[in-house]
Amino acid sequence: MKTHRFQPAEYHLTLGSHVPVLEIEDGDTVLTTTVDNKGRDASDRQVTSPGNPQTGPFYIRGADAGDTLAVRFDRITPTRSIGRTRTCIAPRLLDPEYAAAVWHGGREEELLEWRIDTESWTATLLAPSFPAGRLSLPLDPMVGCFGTAPPRGQLIASNTASRYGGNMDYRGFTAGATVYLPVFVKGGLFHLGDVHALQGDGEIVGTGIEVSAEVEFTVRLIKGRRIDWPRAETRDSILSAANARPLVQAFQEATTEMVRWLVELGLEETRAHVLLGQCVRYEVGNVYDPAYTMICKVGKSLLQGIGLEGPWL
Amino acid sequence: MKTHRFQPAEYHLTLGSHVPVLEIEDGDTVLTTTVDNKGRDASDRQVTSPGNPQTGPFYIRGADAGDTLAVRFDRITPTRSIGRTRTCIAPRLLDPEYAAAVWHGGREEELLEWRIDTESWTATLLAPSFPAGRLSLPLDPMVGCFGTAPPRGQLIASNTASRYGGNMDYRGFTAGATVYLPVFVKGGLFHLGDVHALQGDGEIVGTGIEVSAEVEFTVRLIKGRRIDWPRAETRDSILSAANARPLVQAFQEATTEMVRWLVELGLEETRAHVLLGQCVRYEVGNVYDPAYTMICKVGKSLLQGIGLEGPWL
Amino acid sequence: MKTHRFQPAEYHLTLGSHVPVLEIEDGDTVLTTTVDNKGRDASDRQVTSPGNPQTGPFYIRGADAGDTLAVRFDRITPTRSIGRTRTCIAPRLLDPEYAAAVWHGGREEELLEWRIDTESWTATLLAPSFPAGRLSLPLDPMVGCFGTAPPRGQLIASNTASRYGGNMDYRGFTAGATVYLPVFVKGGLFHLGDVHALQGDGEIVGTGIEVSAEVEFTVRLIKGRRIDWPRAETRDSILSAANARPLVQAFQEATTEMVRWLVELGLEETRAHVLLGQCVRYEVGNVYDPAYTMICKVGKSLLQGIGLEGPWL
Amino acid sequence: MKTHRFQPAEYHLTLGSHVPVLEIEDGDTVLTTTVDNKGRDASDRQVTSPGNPQTGPFYIRGADAGDTLAVRFDRITPTRSIGRTRTCIAPRLLDPEYAAAVWHGGREEELLEWRIDTESWTATLLAPSFPAGRLSLPLDPMVGCFGTAPPRGQLIASNTASRYGGNMDYRGFTAGATVYLPVFVKGGLFHLGDVHALQGDGEIVGTGIEVSAEVEFTVRLIKGRRIDWPRAETRDSILSAANARPLVQAFQEATTEMVRWLVELGLEETRAHVLLGQCVRYEVGNVYDPAYTMICKVGKSLLQGIGLEGPWL
Repeated sequence: MKTHRFQPAEYHLTLGSHVPVLEIEDGDTVLTTTVDNKGRDASDRQVTSPGNPQTGPFYIRGADAGDTLAVRFDRITPTRSIGRTRTCIAPRLLDPEYAAAVWHGGREEELLEWRIDTESWTATLLAPSFPAGRLSLPLDPMVGCFGTAPPRGQLIASNTASRYGGNMDYRGFTAGATVYLPVFVKGGLFHLGDVHALQGDGEIVGTGIEVSAEVEFTVRLIKGRRIDWPRAETRDSILSAANARPLVQAFQEATTEMVRWLVELGLEETRAHVLLGQCVRYEVGNVYDPAYTMICKVGKSLLQGIGLEGPWL
Repeated sequence: MKTHRFQPAEYHLTLGSHVPVLEIEDGDTVLTTTVDNKGRDASDRQVTSPGNPQTGPFYIRGADAGDTLAVRFDRITPTRSIGRTRTCIAPRLLDPEYAAAVWHGGREEELLEWRIDTESWTATLLAPSFPAGRLSLPLDPMVGCFGTAPPRGQLIASNTASRYGGNMDYRGFTAGATVYLPVFVKGGLFHLGDVHALQGDGEIVGTGIEVSAEVEFTVRLIKGRRIDWPRAETRDSILSAANARPLVQAFQEATTEMVRWLVELGLEETRAHVLLGQCVRYEVGNVYDPAYTMICKVGKSLLQGIGLEGPWL
Repeated sequence: MKTHRFQPAEYHLTLGSHVPVLEIEDGDTVLTTTVDNKGRDASDRQVTSPGNPQTGPFYIRGADAGDTLAVRFDRITPTRSIGRTRTCIAPRLLDPEYAAAVWHGGREEELLEWRIDTESWTATLLAPSFPAGRLSLPLDPMVGCFGTAPPRGQLIASNTASRYGGNMDYRGFTAGATVYLPVFVKGGLFHLGDVHALQGDGEIVGTGIEVSAEVEFTVRLIKGRRIDWPRAETRDSILSAANARPLVQAFQEATTEMVRWLVELGLEETRAHVLLGQCVRYEVGNVYDPAYTMICKVGKSLLQGIGLEGPWL
Repeated sequence: MKTHRFQPAEYHLTLGSHVPVLEIEDGDTVLTTTVDNKGRDASDRQVTSPGNPQTGPFYIRGADAGDTLAVRFDRITPTRSIGRTRTCIAPRLLDPEYAAAVWHGGREEELLEWRIDTESWTATLLAPSFPAGRLSLPLDPMVGCFGTAPPRGQLIASNTASRYGGNMDYRGFTAGATVYLPVFVKGGLFHLGDVHALQGDGEIVGTGIEVSAEVEFTVRLIKGRRIDWPRAETRDSILSAANARPLVQAFQEATTEMVRWLVELGLEETRAHVLLGQCVRYEVGNVYDPAYTMICKVGKSLLQGIGLEGPWL
């Protein structure tokens, strides 16, 4: 149960079987930093190429294909006072004729600046102003992109997502959440990056408020337990996260993974259907990038009420 | 500002230009009843054919194509002690190979019974039981299907949805919500039915807890104001509801309608994009039936914080 | 086996249970006319509202829900020398960012004129010209929209399609083709309209070359034979046509309907899979309107080669 | 203009920046071999892991990001007398309820054997037999998977496809076709494999008739010419091939790429729309694997008729 401090010297634009930057044990904690989506660090200097650069990968001793890796995000803190967002909803997320009528190519690339204040715990848009003045929002920092190495020797760009995780951009992946990831290769190879100070559902303008960050996380290795898609546990809920296209396929996969999870927790399969039918909640992760992310969620208190108890995985 | 009591004698399985059952004025309130999705009434007798039978249509004097109809649901109360649900997530909402492996044709048609108790405000599943006993859930009654008459003389089945409303099965359409509907024909012709005692997101088993109900609603006519999709206002939020296939098209249309709404409220269009980018929330309505429903939602307090004030429409 | 001449006096913008214009017997032939998509007749006068006005419906004596109606198109002849097309691929059928960059709202509504010459059997675009002069194409007249009345008392707009047929805009529905349609209501109620002098796959600009036409067709009633989707038989092939959204769902339904057909023809189901796996052909019907049309096709000579013989339905 | 004979010693399960196996010049011809999808060679021995193993990559001297690589398939010859197919249409390509009712997990993995006869130029299914005896089909050999290295250092599994090519499984990629591929990395890095003796549209059972093969191809480097998606030229047609999910997105991208191509050939953009509107043809490539392939096609004689002449790229 060691705490490692790791300051990255280089970053990866793909998730995959890169040379590990650090070997850690089951139960260890890592305190590290991430650059923003454009490769800018805490000093706002560009230190690597843009495109969701990933810190890592971290090699977890003993992890093998077929295991599950649990990663608890202990703390996620923006490390600079400036954050940036794009300005324009992607045309592919609007009515095609509306988009064609109002959208002007290039606008998508403009960036707006926000002042990140970790004392008042707010992000304030510097310009433009709104009718009542500046737009100021409470921080809600989350890790936009993280995952294990995919199978088959693949190196997959950090702007997409699949069974190994990736760029899911779900605003529930905040400090306190424990994420569960399938292990496909020896050591698991955990990557992370693309922290947002906060974000709307869907990441429909193509960014959250993009910041550099300090992230502390603790890993737990669950041997011999195979999951098909990322899962997570927050204070109140358990959830599955599936990444696919079209959106309904992400919906199908997230739902199926939740059925499997409930069955693993001891529920007879038809009861899992009955329960989800009247109680399930869905949320939308990234719908901007190639793979769409759909979240399928069930409240812990509901599960406890029907006699299921944690640990949930 | 009159209150009408209307007890239906017949029902419609389509929304459209049927002969109106009642003419009402702008501002009037209607207290009426609905049968359940199978056509069963408060006595649990089948009084009409199954398939979301609709009460109405109600003719609103002065309403013309291009206007908007506001309908506030004042009260939605189940009127019998038995509710029913289907048992099985639709195969098309599961991973296709998983569905093919576990699903058995016909199961979809089984019905389970729930005891609806409007005193304790709970629904309790009579069988099967769960590990901790019976599954009991707080009531959250909502109108599953409602809408105006579609254009072009169409009569459209009450299991689907489009710009005129229809079978949206969104759990936010509860008492207290005001829904806004485009008017396509003289009198608007408001229909309603398919009340659920409560429901999970998506209506993934094909039903909520289906009940007969008493519904009180108050109409307001907004002359000369054209909207493209249903909208609504709850205590906390404004929301747009779009009904289309595939799911991402419902997402596109709901997002576009919300952009339009924010612009109508006085926000410059690019500011609407910026705001939604970091603050929007999405929810999932019906994904069981031919048209999928996606909800795009923004908090009223957020809007007030940037200087926008109601009335919202 | 009578031949009826029927000159329509009015038209319908929906397919459904309208009052029949003519009652005919199994085996009868009808010689009638259709107006173009804009409601213009052989004299190019607008005689009814635009939106694929339908001639009919024709009541087939003895037809009941669960039967199949076979309609052979004996002859389809343009009846005027002018045809019209739209000019611009719909933005929703282009890359969204490309569409947003190049598309200008309103262009979609422009109309170009073509000279239809039934002697030389060509359509010639009057303007604009192409590098080598005028664009001239061989005629290939087809019926864009036809179908029976849908179930449940619905009246459904003639710009969409479903199990009953509708606006399929498939260029294979030419003279010589026999189409098979499910019967949902007493009399079947066959409608037709929207003839194109010729058309590209997908109807991606929203029109074929739109003309008024004379259509001769012969009906055959197949009692007690139920099909799930429109089917057809051309000189060389049998094909199924499914209408749904998204495109892959039309693909699924067309494929499934062809599997069923091969099984009905006597092929063991796994052999149907094996055969289609290596021999199936797909074509694209309408992808412009709400429901997309996908065609699943198998060659008759291939079927004869494995020992299956007609009649095919 | 040299001809290289290259016998692979190892294969790759991903397309990407692997160490090149051979450096060739613009204009050179390569005569090489491919193993089948399962990694079996001309002797039917498994010599590498299954999953569309790729021969190559071949490094083309002088190729840089932003160029286009033209590859003409001169000859594609099966090199053994046995081919194999799967037996069962994937459940995700059938109506979900039909699939759930009739499909039995595991059937998808069964393999059938075909005798490949390059003298009679036929493939004959050994078992099961059909009503008229054995199913025998004319050979039509094609390369199922080929492409350049994708950008960003990615290594992408050879069962999917994108802008760089990949597993497109289009039956038009036969001997005589010239394919055009975008170059993303120095040397281009051309891979190929997964030859089918023949195949139905869509590869709906998950395989064509899978064989080992000898492939001869000739490369031409087109400096400074950037294309966005694979294109090809056959004897009769030019075509674009786009790989995406959902199917309609592949349709959008293929259509857009064809518009660009026609504009490059000198057609004013609105004329390109008009021409495609009435003359375009679509075909379906792979719809079994993660990315769907849609083909957008225009006849060369049509283009010549309006005054456009080759060379086409």
